Amino acid sequence: MGLGEIELIERLRRQTGTGDRVLLGIGDDAALTAPQGRTVTTVDAVVEGIHFDRASSDARQIAHKALATALSDLAAMAADPGELYVTLGLPAKTDPDFTLAMADALVELAAGWNAVLAGGDTVGSPTLFLGVTAVGHIPQGEEAVTRGGARPGELVCVTGSLGGAGAGLLMIQGRAAGARLAPGIREALSSRQLTPQPLLEAGRALRGLGVSALIDVSDGLGTDLGHIARTSSVAITVDFDRVPVQEGVAEVASAVDRHLPDLALGAGEDYELALTLAPERFEKVAGALESCGTKLSRIGEVLTGEGVRLTRGGEPLPMPRGFEHRS
Amino acid sequence: MGLGEIELIERLRRQTGTGDRVLLGIGDDAALTAPQGRTVTTVDAVVEGIHFDRASSDARQIAHKALATALSDLAAMAADPGELYVTLGLPAKTDPDFTLAMADALVELAAGWNAVLAGGDTVGSPTLFLGVTAVGHIPQGEEAVTRGGARPGELVCVTGSLGGAGAGLLMIQGRAAGARLAPGIREALSSRQLTPQPLLEAGRALRGLGVSALIDVSDGLGTDLGHIARTSSVAITVDFDRVPVQEGVAEVASAVDRHLPDLALGAGEDYELALTLAPERFEKVAGALESCGTKLSRIGEVLTGEGVRLTRGGEPLPMPRGFEHRS
Repeated sequence: MGLGEIELIERLRRQTGTGDRVLLGIGDDAALTAPQGRTVTTVDAVVEGIHFDRASSDARQIAHKALATALSDLAAMAADPGELYVTLGLPAKTDPDFTLAMADALVELAAGWNAVLAGGDTVGSPTLFLGVTAVGHIPQGEEAVTRGGARPGELVCVTGSLGGAGAGLLMIQGRAAGARLAPGIREALSSRQLTPQPLLEAGRALRGLGVSALIDVSDGLGTDLGHIARTSSVAITVDFDRVPVQEGVAEVASAVDRHLPDLALGAGEDYELALTLAPERFEKVAGALESCGTKLSRIGEVLTGEGVRLTRGGEPLPMPRGFEHRS
Repeated sequence: MGLGEIELIERLRRQTGTGDRVLLGIGDDAALTAPQGRTVTTVDAVVEGIHFDRASSDARQIAHKALATALSDLAAMAADPGELYVTLGLPAKTDPDFTLAMADALVELAAGWNAVLAGGDTVGSPTLFLGVTAVGHIPQGEEAVTRGGARPGELVCVTGSLGGAGAGLLMIQGRAAGARLAPGIREALSSRQLTPQPLLEAGRALRGLGVSALIDVSDGLGTDLGHIARTSSVAITVDFDRVPVQEGVAEVASAVDRHLPDLALGAGEDYELALTLAPERFEKVAGALESCGTKLSRIGEVLTGEGVRLTRGGEPLPMPRGFEHRS
């Protein structure tokens, strides 16, 4: 690659510190940490041409998306962010300035999310990719929230609004040119796709409040609620009329001649949180989330049985087919 | 990809268990573990066309190399193997049988190295790659061995023998056709390249024996001892005549018209362990390693100063330039 691995590691080592938990970060065979309580670990990767394009994203935006998608899984376990480890797959012809901008962005973004970039690796690769390992922590005596605790009679809820990331991608790809949108709405949709925000504060605020199942909306609400239904051995119904859809998404769906539910529930990448809870807990949980600036909406119910069923205006709605905009 | 991610995850989930430390493995947003003592974490990746080729390696061999190179970093911290997390980057046209063979191999190989495949992710990618996160553990009250503790007056030692992986690669690439080697020696060199063995037992046997610095030989002995010298702020001298070179490596070096030290010390990928220790500790440490079937050789000394110096027959030897056999 254009920039020596030793030079890059030395630069990162100087910028990142150790701390109470990270005893030894970048620069040895492995990082050394002293975790307390329980540890939550997730791995993810973003790949050029699949999850991002250098034509529409700069180094910082690519780093942002890579870290955010991994950190979102920590939010979805109700964990505190801890350590990040990044593997950079770099084509031989990569501009050293790009690599340095990426390294600086990784360090800064990690710190902004209260995480430490504790290790990494660079490898040659024909395709640019970033593999991210995100490690979170649950303090001693507290519990993570998994996908497996939903029970019949509970409510199904989702944070924020959906469809923005999918609509943003269609805009960036130039496929939604016919949509008439105010500049601020365009910008919000585009940011939703390029620089998603992991709901870390919201996720950790959910610990200890009796939320029975929790997942982040990465693949699309239908698919992600399917994971909760399967893991919890329950059925889930969702009323599409109650699903909060981001402003501008309907116009984009119309411009590309697709049904709104396909875009709002099928495109994914919104990184909102979907959860289940007993009805009597709704007010308290919604209040805790509101303190983090996050709105919670009731969108459905947990029933006995299996699978996810969608309705709209009381009529069954086909499951969104997803958006085959990615190879 | 050819095989659905849910199907693959379900298959892996059925095959892998949880345990005392892994409370929740594959199948939720993240794995949930309850580590004790200190945690050691490393990330690594192998990429098609750079670290392996499907023409010369099957799914199991690729999985083997990916896990082994990451686990070797745990050995180099003197840690016990714990959890493995794998990100599979899969081209759209990947044969489902290949993916399944890869998944089965990952589970089996992890178990064979006393590790648990606790999580993973599949992503679409134009280039096949495996990202591996290896997590190891140091029991309460014991210490990891880092790169930073070498002191002037100590010995420099290396396990096993070097150069085999580099010679094996030249053979596999058909560039060493002129080397006259017995079939058993060819086979040993080839295995050294395709299915390296992480020295996990040897690594953990080194805990508590006063080894001052430890690293695995992945980039080539010269480069790797350079990491110890820099991190420990010392100089290191190595007498090439004392370096154990694997049988057949000299013949391959001769067949490709290169100096033996370039191949033995520059090609890397042997995954032996290099270490420093006070002279009076040598016998005890060598004995502990012998109990794991690993031979330890004294090859040099730690001095004040900086950098690594090689000698052969008392004369200075240029640092091996490495082998540019990989893009």
